[in-house]
Amino acid sequence: MRNAVSALEGSRIREVANEGLGREGVLKFWFGESDEVTPAFIREAAIASLHEGETFYAHNLGLPELRAALATYTARLHPTQAGQGLPDRLAVTSGGVNGLMLACQAVLDAGDEVVAVTPVWPNLVAQPLIMGAQVRRVPLRPGVDGAWGLDLAELLAAITPRTRLLVVNAPNNPSGWTLSADEQRAILAHCRQTGTWILADEVYERLYYAPTANGCAPSFLDHAKADDRLIVTHSFSKSFLMTGWRLGWLVMPPGLTDAMGKLIEFNTSCAPVFVQRAALQALARADEVTPALVAHLKTCRDTLVPALQALPGIEVATPLGGMYAFLRIHGQDDCLDVAKRLVREAGLGLAPGSAFGPEAAGWLRWCFASRDTGRLLEGVDRLKRWLRL
Amino acid sequence: MRNAVSALEGSRIREVANEGLGREGVLKFWFGESDEVTPAFIREAAIASLHEGETFYAHNLGLPELRAALATYTARLHPTQAGQGLPDRLAVTSGGVNGLMLACQAVLDAGDEVVAVTPVWPNLVAQPLIMGAQVRRVPLRPGVDGAWGLDLAELLAAITPRTRLLVVNAPNNPSGWTLSADEQRAILAHCRQTGTWILADEVYERLYYAPTANGCAPSFLDHAKADDRLIVTHSFSKSFLMTGWRLGWLVMPPGLTDAMGKLIEFNTSCAPVFVQRAALQALARADEVTPALVAHLKTCRDTLVPALQALPGIEVATPLGGMYAFLRIHGQDDCLDVAKRLVREAGLGLAPGSAFGPEAAGWLRWCFASRDTGRLLEGVDRLKRWLRL
Repeated sequence: MRNAVSALEGSRIREVANEGLGREGVLKFWFGESDEVTPAFIREAAIASLHEGETFYAHNLGLPELRAALATYTARLHPTQAGQGLPDRLAVTSGGVNGLMLACQAVLDAGDEVVAVTPVWPNLVAQPLIMGAQVRRVPLRPGVDGAWGLDLAELLAAITPRTRLLVVNAPNNPSGWTLSADEQRAILAHCRQTGTWILADEVYERLYYAPTANGCAPSFLDHAKADDRLIVTHSFSKSFLMTGWRLGWLVMPPGLTDAMGKLIEFNTSCAPVFVQRAALQALARADEVTPALVAHLKTCRDTLVPALQALPGIEVATPLGGMYAFLRIHGQDDCLDVAKRLVREAGLGLAPGSAFGPEAAGWLRWCFASRDTGRLLEGVDRLKRWLRL
Repeated sequence: MRNAVSALEGSRIREVANEGLGREGVLKFWFGESDEVTPAFIREAAIASLHEGETFYAHNLGLPELRAALATYTARLHPTQAGQGLPDRLAVTSGGVNGLMLACQAVLDAGDEVVAVTPVWPNLVAQPLIMGAQVRRVPLRPGVDGAWGLDLAELLAAITPRTRLLVVNAPNNPSGWTLSADEQRAILAHCRQTGTWILADEVYERLYYAPTANGCAPSFLDHAKADDRLIVTHSFSKSFLMTGWRLGWLVMPPGLTDAMGKLIEFNTSCAPVFVQRAALQALARADEVTPALVAHLKTCRDTLVPALQALPGIEVATPLGGMYAFLRIHGQDDCLDVAKRLVREAGLGLAPGSAFGPEAAGWLRWCFASRDTGRLLEGVDRLKRWLRL
C-alpha cells in the first residue's frame, strides 16, 4: 500500500459512532445527514424507471435532460451564468464527494501545492493527498462570539503562483462560516493572477438562512466567467434529502468537460439512469422540497442554538448556513474524549471538531437536521444533565 | 488541466457510435452490454427498498449482509478461499471500474511502473496514467487460428522488482483470451518474488464456456493466499445483467481493507442501499440467473462465430470466455475507418480493435450478448452484403 494512503486519517466521527454500537437510545447528531426519508414522489420516479427497465449504461456526463434541467436550475440561482454555455459545462457525478475527487484528478499532479481553508470536511483534504499533492492549511479562527472567520489577507498571501488549487467549502462544514460576495470576488481576482484553480464545494448553498434574492448563499458562480479556472461541486444530498442516492454535479469551464467525461468513464462510468430520473423529478419539483426543507432547518437551528446558548460555559454562534451548530464547552478541551463520553454517559452523539482538522480541536459539531425538533431539545437536556447544570 | 489527463485517449468505440447518431436501424454490437433488462425480481428488491425509505448513507465497505453473501458466493466458486477471512477482505464498489480505480489509488504512486497485458479494455490502462504511473504494455498476439495468446516468458521477463503493479484482464476484453491455472500460478509465484501487486480484472469469470467444476474461468483466487499482493475486481454487470446499476466488489488482502474503506469514503462514500438490496437478491437467486444467461451467451457465440468463420477472408476464433467475437477482415487494416463505414454503409455497429490498444489495430470486436440470436445472423448478413460476398 502507498504511504500516502496508509497515512490517511481514519474518520474520528466514525470512531465516536463506534462507541455507540449496541447502545440503545443514543441521540445521533454526529453525521451530516437529515433523518428524513427522500420525498415519496422522488422515490417514485426511480421506481417507475426501474419498472420500465432503464437498467443500462448511460452517458458519462449524465442524461442530456438532467444536464439541461441542472443548467436551468443553476441559471435561476445564479443569473449571471445564464448564456454562459451552461449545459455543456455540467457533469453529473456519483455524489458530491465523487465530483470533488474527479476535480482533483483533473488538475492535481503529484507534488502540486494545494491551499485549503480549514477546518473542513476531511474528504476535501484527503483527496489531494490521494493524488500525491501537498496541502497547506489556512485556518479560520473563532471570534469572541464563537463565530468562525476568515483572515482574507492571510489566505491571499498563502495563494501564490505555485499554488495549483484552492479548496474552499462555504457555507462551511463544520463551522457554518460563509464567504461573502466581496471575499469571493477578491479570491477570484487573486487566483486569476496566480493561475490557481478554485475548487468550491458549495453543496450547502441552499441551506442558507439570511434573506437573499436568489434563496442561496453567495457563490463563486455569481462572479465567475465561464473560462475561469473554477470548479463548483454540488450534491442532491442536502437540498433534496437524497444522501444515500449518491448523486451530485459539477460546474466547470467548457475546456474541461470532455476530459471530465473521460475521468467519469474511468472512475464510475456513469450514474444509474433510475437515480438520474429521481433527480430530474427532484429538480422539477424543487420548489416543493427545498424551501420547506430550509424553513424547517431554520426552525431546527433556532430551536437548538438558543437552547445551547442559554447554558453557561457553552460557546456557540448562530450559523448563517449549513446544518450544523459548532460549539465548545469551556474546560473540556479533548473533544474526541468528550464526544465518546457523551455517547457513553449521556446518550448524546456529536462529532468531534478534531475530525475536521487540528484547528477545531476542542469543538463539537451538532447536526441539527432533525425531523422532530423535540429530539434536539432532548439532546440539550442530556448535555445539561451531563454537565450537571 | 493536467497533461496526464488531457493526453487520455477518447473512446474510439464512442467515436464509432457517434457515427450512428440519428441513423435508423443500426444493429449495435459495439458496447460490452447485453440488450436484456435486469431480471424483474432483482429490480423488485430495489423497488421494495425504495418503498421502505432506505435512502440514507451506508457503510463505506458495503452492507454487512452483502459482504457476507459475497463471501459465500466467492468461497463457492473458489473453495480454496473458504476459511481465508473472506468477508473482511471484501469491499462493495460503485461498479467494477470503480473497484479498479480504487485499487490503483491504493497501490500506485506517481512514477510507479505498471505492466499491463494488452489489448485490453482501455480503462485498465488509463487508470494508472491518472495516478501518474507509467504503463508498459506486454502484448498478446494472434495465432494462425485467430486466437490470441500470451508469451508467458515475455510477461515474466517484463515484471521486475521495479514493477509495482501487474494489470491483467482474463477472460480478456476484447480478445477472449483466458489465462490458464498454470499461467496464473507462474505469474503469482513470479510476482511474489518481485514484490509486484496483481490487479486481476475477473469480471468475465462466469462467462466461461469450457466445462469446469465450479462454473467459472481459472482465477488467481484459486491459487492465492489471503496475504498475497492480489486485488481481484468483480462486477454485477455481466453475470447478473446489471450494467446500469454500477455495482461491483473487490477481493483483497486483509491488510488493505481499512485503507480501502477510507478510499471509498473519499471517492463515492458508499453504494446506494437500494442498489445493494438488488444485489443481495441477485446473489440469493444467482442459480436462476447466471447459468441460464451463460447458456444463452454460449448459444449466441455458437451462432455468431461459425457464421463469421464461414465467410471467406474473415479470421475469428471461438472464444472460451467473455462475450465478444474478435475478428479481422483480410485487406481491411484501418479498423476505425472500417467500423465507421460499417455503420454508415451496412448499418452494423462494431467496436474497432484499436480502441483496445495498437496491438489490436485491424481487428473488430463484436459483442454477442443479444437476447435475439436472429439479430446476430442479420448482422452477419449485413457484413456479407457489405463485403459483396
